[in-house]
Amino acid sequence: LTASTDDELLDELRDKLSATPFYGWSGISLESAARAEVTITLEIDERHVNLQGLVHGGVLATMADVAMGLAVRTAVEPDRRHVTIEMGMHYVRPAPRGRIRAAGRAVHVGGQIAYAEADLIDGAGRLLARATGTYSVARERA
Amino acid sequence: LTASTDDELLDELRDKLSATPFYGWSGISLESAARAEVTITLEIDERHVNLQGLVHGGVLATMADVAMGLAVRTAVEPDRRHVTIEMGMHYVRPAPRGRIRAAGRAVHVGGQIAYAEADLIDGAGRLLARATGTYSVARERA
Amino acid sequence: LTASTDDELLDELRDKLSATPFYGWSGISLESAARAEVTITLEIDERHVNLQGLVHGGVLATMADVAMGLAVRTAVEPDRRHVTIEMGMHYVRPAPRGRIRAAGRAVHVGGQIAYAEADLIDGAGRLLARATGTYSVARERA
Amino acid sequence: LTASTDDELLDELRDKLSATPFYGWSGISLESAARAEVTITLEIDERHVNLQGLVHGGVLATMADVAMGLAVRTAVEPDRRHVTIEMGMHYVRPAPRGRIRAAGRAVHVGGQIAYAEADLIDGAGRLLARATGTYSVARERA
Repeated sequence: LTASTDDELLDELRDKLSATPFYGWSGISLESAARAEVTITLEIDERHVNLQGLVHGGVLATMADVAMGLAVRTAVEPDRRHVTIEMGMHYVRPAPRGRIRAAGRAVHVGGQIAYAEADLIDGAGRLLARATGTYSVARERA
Repeated sequence: LTASTDDELLDELRDKLSATPFYGWSGISLESAARAEVTITLEIDERHVNLQGLVHGGVLATMADVAMGLAVRTAVEPDRRHVTIEMGMHYVRPAPRGRIRAAGRAVHVGGQIAYAEADLIDGAGRLLARATGTYSVARERA
Repeated sequence: LTASTDDELLDELRDKLSATPFYGWSGISLESAARAEVTITLEIDERHVNLQGLVHGGVLATMADVAMGLAVRTAVEPDRRHVTIEMGMHYVRPAPRGRIRAAGRAVHVGGQIAYAEADLIDGAGRLLARATGTYSVARERA
Repeated sequence: LTASTDDELLDELRDKLSATPFYGWSGISLESAARAEVTITLEIDERHVNLQGLVHGGVLATMADVAMGLAVRTAVEPDRRHVTIEMGMHYVRPAPRGRIRAAGRAVHVGGQIAYAEADLIDGAGRLLARATGTYSVARERA
């Protein structure tokens, strides 16, 4: 990333995301971006719920990984790439239909390893889940 | 679940899954089922890969949660439901395009809590990721 | 716990802890306590460091589990007990000798499950590690 | 490590461990060692149990981190050091007094990251807990 303001950062990330079919398919969209902090949203519909009518844990995990990964992406040098080493989800409330937001932040970015967290939040501002993630950060090969 | 053989179990799970749009949307299908062990597969295509062309960590997490959740489902009494409390992923190799398999197993099922694990494996049998999950197991409300 | 003020809470926890040899052996002491928030400290010495002279990951994990468990303890009804279901540590900086503090907080306490987090912090206020924990909360058997 | 047989490996690890006060203090001793697999034991006494008379979760986490870390140590090149990035514990049964064994194995060792697991087992061979750990593996600085 080469953006120098938050607005440019948001535009740059949006351009990158619109280039991958994953975002169209998953329905995830960017809401805001600043250095080390990225928020995404997803409008939950019938595709995202499990047999019990609740949002699938994997859907929330996907949102968390996206939000944390992008937060790390905005916090490292432009010529570096990040790879998820591990991630964890703690689900604290059943997630209902409606709009869900994942707010990711890079908590610590070291020379080789970054650690990030995310909050998954429903439309009423209630915490649905907390996520943690570890990322390997390495220079991109030419 | 009320099945008494593995074949009946597989049929019963397939019926349940075909009733939820999530499975059609995600592309996940059941491969095998036995008590406490369920394997699912996903044919990876361009929708499932990230900006770097590798399978999205969230896609693998979704597969793991499905495989572990179904494995727990087959191991508890018919009148009980399971809810994911937490789950974790450890990614050990970048996941390529092609068919990926998630083999879930319920390692321990207690009165209130179940613990499960899953292996994510590529077409050549290589371990891509290991997953762990904790499930709350409670009597279904009438 | 039956305390009605934070000072009484701290006294009550100190009494309980002084009754178990674990605290004398581990060297852990209580620093502060409020509802859902407990901070403990440990003066690191040569017993707590690994082959490389850094504080052993298990020592920090022990501090985290104590701080989170006590935070949960102060947040549940007096007649309930908590049991650790799972816990995780993310180490972000090597921990030096000196005084280390673990600040635990109960993030969410439900009817059966509680979720807590802890920060491990060195004498200069730097984050050494972040911890997460899930606790089963059940009525104590008579 | 420079050992070429399992017996030499066990001797070499024992020498290293006996040089650190941590092992005398914690009571942990080595049982067996092979490439990528190390088992340690601890005789549980009153120092290791919590307010409820059960083995402290942090004690089991310490055993797990030691067993996994040593397993990684035996699997990497002699001139490399390992540092714990993150670790997780899943507790499946309350741990009683008596002898507890932690069997660690390095599941995957890459160029920079290693992933390990451990089983915590009581004297009757029952699984008490499962552990996972991620380790940074880097060349030792001269």
